[in-house]
Amino acid sequence: MSVFEHPEFEGHEHVAFHQDEATGLKAIIAVHNTNLGPALGGCRMWTYQDSAEALNDVLRLSRGMTYKSAMADLKLGGGKSVIIGDPRKHKTPEMMQAMGRFVDSLGGRYITAEDSGIAVADIKEMSKHTAYVGGVEAKYRYDGGEADGNPAPSTAYGVFVGLKAAVQHKLGSDLKGVKVAIQGLGHVGYRLAEHLHREGAILYVTDIFPDNLARAKEELGAIVVEPADIFGLDVDVFAPCALGAAINESSLVQLKARVIAGAANNQLANESIGKAVREKGLLYAPDYVINAGGVIDIYHQRMLSTPTALRAHIEKIGETLSEIFVRADEEGRPTNVVANLMAEERFKGTSVNG
Amino acid sequence: MSVFEHPEFEGHEHVAFHQDEATGLKAIIAVHNTNLGPALGGCRMWTYQDSAEALNDVLRLSRGMTYKSAMADLKLGGGKSVIIGDPRKHKTPEMMQAMGRFVDSLGGRYITAEDSGIAVADIKEMSKHTAYVGGVEAKYRYDGGEADGNPAPSTAYGVFVGLKAAVQHKLGSDLKGVKVAIQGLGHVGYRLAEHLHREGAILYVTDIFPDNLARAKEELGAIVVEPADIFGLDVDVFAPCALGAAINESSLVQLKARVIAGAANNQLANESIGKAVREKGLLYAPDYVINAGGVIDIYHQRMLSTPTALRAHIEKIGETLSEIFVRADEEGRPTNVVANLMAEERFKGTSVNG
Repeated sequence: MSVFEHPEFEGHEHVAFHQDEATGLKAIIAVHNTNLGPALGGCRMWTYQDSAEALNDVLRLSRGMTYKSAMADLKLGGGKSVIIGDPRKHKTPEMMQAMGRFVDSLGGRYITAEDSGIAVADIKEMSKHTAYVGGVEAKYRYDGGEADGNPAPSTAYGVFVGLKAAVQHKLGSDLKGVKVAIQGLGHVGYRLAEHLHREGAILYVTDIFPDNLARAKEELGAIVVEPADIFGLDVDVFAPCALGAAINESSLVQLKARVIAGAANNQLANESIGKAVREKGLLYAPDYVINAGGVIDIYHQRMLSTPTALRAHIEKIGETLSEIFVRADEEGRPTNVVANLMAEERFKGTSVNG
Repeated sequence: MSVFEHPEFEGHEHVAFHQDEATGLKAIIAVHNTNLGPALGGCRMWTYQDSAEALNDVLRLSRGMTYKSAMADLKLGGGKSVIIGDPRKHKTPEMMQAMGRFVDSLGGRYITAEDSGIAVADIKEMSKHTAYVGGVEAKYRYDGGEADGNPAPSTAYGVFVGLKAAVQHKLGSDLKGVKVAIQGLGHVGYRLAEHLHREGAILYVTDIFPDNLARAKEELGAIVVEPADIFGLDVDVFAPCALGAAINESSLVQLKARVIAGAANNQLANESIGKAVREKGLLYAPDYVINAGGVIDIYHQRMLSTPTALRAHIEKIGETLSEIFVRADEEGRPTNVVANLMAEERFKGTSVNG
């Protein structure tokens, strides 16, 4: 495996490998594209088997951030970083500071933030040696409330707005009486459920933690189902808010919903499943478009913006999705393909027909 | 092939891959070690088959620069860069400028200079976008003469000083009447021949260009021999000043000289041949120690030093070699092994016994 010839390298500008012997840090920063602005993307710490596996992950994720930021109308490019190691065993404040120096050595081309295995406290250690961090200085929520440093409220609000746009496009209705099956009631999924409940939706929920389910049942009147049963319900909307690859050949056969709109990353098991989704008559809200509320939040907090501007920006997710849906219908293309084309038109600055 | 697990990665701090689609630049910068100072090392442009081959080269060469700078008593670390492409076909001023931006993006951690395929004019293009270049602002020669931008006079003077120290150590004499076989009369080899001639040495020379040989015969009274005959001559010193791997199993059998001291890079076909050289009773002046005059020159020019300081620094090559020779005798180790150990003691800042 080489770097320039790596199947995921294509289009990348810069990939840096860094080792700090004093702290044991082994990390990679990948900068995919900076045409629209500096490359923002989280730092993930994971027990990668070797640097080949880590490279594969960081290249794939950094490209994804370029598309996400472009579709979120942010003046940001796409990047990502990975640290090789077990966050529970190998992480130290000194290692995080060394990571901060590594981030700083790219001179602002890359801005880091939390991701799996890296918490706000770790980013704060990094920030002792670099100003190029996001997600630590959150002052407010999109609704004016006080921030606790977690962008989940913004992500959930964006998914809610996007889901509403998808229902409007596909079913021509608001959310009153619409049946939504939510897979996963974590930080984002639960908040999404609250929004939907307030607008009169009927909720079917599943999760691996009974506490979340009991609370949803009590507070939101949700109907609790087994994890395996969430796909085949007779509902209008399926909202994947848990692990990736929720939409695969097996689940697609079971789905009766007409809209797929949720918060999870990498909802499609592969890009070609988007075609099957379309052919079955389902409307899919591309994951990286609908779940961009978190990165929009980080951007506004970093720019010392206002809750009002943040909220308006998150609400644009609905408009962007509507644009994707219309174009997908006009061109007879899957929505995930249209989203990618629109992103490329934005960050490559040229019209792409492919 | 991965990066952190690459057999040549060990000890490296930073390896960056950079692609600039507008100019076609594909380049790698490797920073091996910066404990003693910023990593200085040339930029090589070569028709590498792929980035795996380029990575192998840049990692190997950057480590070599750490050892070289450490033994040359420079406040510099070791680094190197490579550009993938044919310098005669693919090089453009715009590509060199993009390379300058890449060098600059490391913020001074790496300082570039000429190497194979990259000329002073190319470095000047790079310098439009970065101050981290060496070898373009040469103002003077070590002997006070006017510089033409070529550090060959300094390299040749360093080799001359080192050769003298080796002869003193092994033969207990000055150069008067000492027979020296010089393989290669290029920019450095010819200047070395002039120095040796002035001190009364008797010269045997070979080269692939007849012009150089005719001139050496006329000006320096050198005895011209065929390239294949240079190894077996009955001389005191063999001075490899041409291609690498001059000291290999086949040439070692032929050598009658008692001292090996020349300007070529990578004189030993492999590290273990140093043991065979020692066991045969030959004294080998480690190549990267004796040929460090060029990098010393670049350092002093960059530091706006003086010809006097530059000359004195080059002359320290003789003292350093004497130190290596004494320690090799005391420890019963090959000189190339002792040089590596001493370099590691210097740049790792700890005493190494290995």
